[in-house]
Amino acid sequence: MAQNIYDHPEFFEEFMHLPSQTKGLNGAPEWPSFRSLLPSCLENAMILDLGCGAGWTCRWAASQGAAKILGIDISYKMLKRARDFPQDTRITYQQADLEVVELARDTFDIALSSLALHYVKDLPRIMQQVFASLVEGGTFVFSIEHPIYTAPSNPDWNKKEDAQPLDDYLHDGARTTNWLHDGVIKYHHTFATLINLLHATGFVLEQVAEWGPSAEEVYTSKELANRRNRPRFLLMKAVKPQIM
Amino acid sequence: MAQNIYDHPEFFEEFMHLPSQTKGLNGAPEWPSFRSLLPSCLENAMILDLGCGAGWTCRWAASQGAAKILGIDISYKMLKRARDFPQDTRITYQQADLEVVELARDTFDIALSSLALHYVKDLPRIMQQVFASLVEGGTFVFSIEHPIYTAPSNPDWNKKEDAQPLDDYLHDGARTTNWLHDGVIKYHHTFATLINLLHATGFVLEQVAEWGPSAEEVYTSKELANRRNRPRFLLMKAVKPQIM
Repeated sequence: MAQNIYDHPEFFEEFMHLPSQTKGLNGAPEWPSFRSLLPSCLENAMILDLGCGAGWTCRWAASQGAAKILGIDISYKMLKRARDFPQDTRITYQQADLEVVELARDTFDIALSSLALHYVKDLPRIMQQVFASLVEGGTFVFSIEHPIYTAPSNPDWNKKEDAQPLDDYLHDGARTTNWLHDGVIKYHHTFATLINLLHATGFVLEQVAEWGPSAEEVYTSKELANRRNRPRFLLMKAVKPQIM
Repeated sequence: MAQNIYDHPEFFEEFMHLPSQTKGLNGAPEWPSFRSLLPSCLENAMILDLGCGAGWTCRWAASQGAAKILGIDISYKMLKRARDFPQDTRITYQQADLEVVELARDTFDIALSSLALHYVKDLPRIMQQVFASLVEGGTFVFSIEHPIYTAPSNPDWNKKEDAQPLDDYLHDGARTTNWLHDGVIKYHHTFATLINLLHATGFVLEQVAEWGPSAEEVYTSKELANRRNRPRFLLMKAVKPQIM
């Protein structure tokens, strides 16, 4: 079973103050990149959102004319928050652990997952679930913390002497970090692991983005400049091929 | 025109003392990974080797029963060394700059390139050339210095104070480094750049490897241990799809 850090009271409280929660998608700097990987038209699409949190992407998909949206998250608190928004009959929220969830087969046109898969230990299993849940020609778009960012054996290197900003890259597996709270477990997956896994699952990888601010944005923020040194997010678009 | 550092007398002299030149493929630690990405059978294959250097891979391909092998390199000195080995009529060497070379079309079953493409500025052009030179179903396998390794604005960070081991990742382009000699120009291409370029060219990416020593090998060498922290080489296998 996956760690459910989002239901920890202090973590949840901190998380609710992040721009991605106070401003929604407009507070998520990588959203324009993520959006650009999704199909341009969502009209009448069946959509699956893995790690939907407070439902920002689900509501956006509804606004784009999607037929039905299933949002899945492990966190009761996040789903409660999602349900506090005005209800839309096209959106269904489901509490489930991505380590063990069983998805409906041949159902969705688009599966998406925003910054959730680095919490998943058994990536091959969820990839297979997503692949089976998509119709032929369906699209899977996900973002994940960048391998450069998840690699270090000591993720809080910038707060400690002797810690290295990048080590242990080739060692896939769990890293325990302090992000909003102590003891948050994230899983490091190398680039090769992610790409070979998509291929082995049957997906065709169509596009990759490594999110960092634009050169223009960097002028406005020193903190952002560091994100061009080490991109924080990795985004991928893969397609379940049509059987000819 | 590309820099031809291999014809610089001092660089060449230093390079000739590397294990990859004194021991050939057995002196190249990533060779087993590279070999594993190539088709298992090379019998009667037409092979292109971009950046063939002293011809180690060309001779290996001949030993595996390849029909013809074209080795291309910018360096006269390297090709002279290649021709010093016992001649094999199946192998042809050609002096050419990968920035401007024109390759025969629909000719090769396998194109390979070992640690040469980080010297090429115009990567889209050479990718298109390779794609056009392959027959349908042909395979392209290449190794390149890993983006984590080529990124730093100051590639000699470990020799200087205040230099960072990883910065400037999202900035594709030239880096001037001291590797065997001052002023060696290499080009940093991000993961996203490489993968999206393969896809845009028409290739289907089949496998990726990030070379580092095995956990067992690390026990024998402290220097190797650091290669697990930051992999030195990136290897990719892509295929030119069959038109149905």
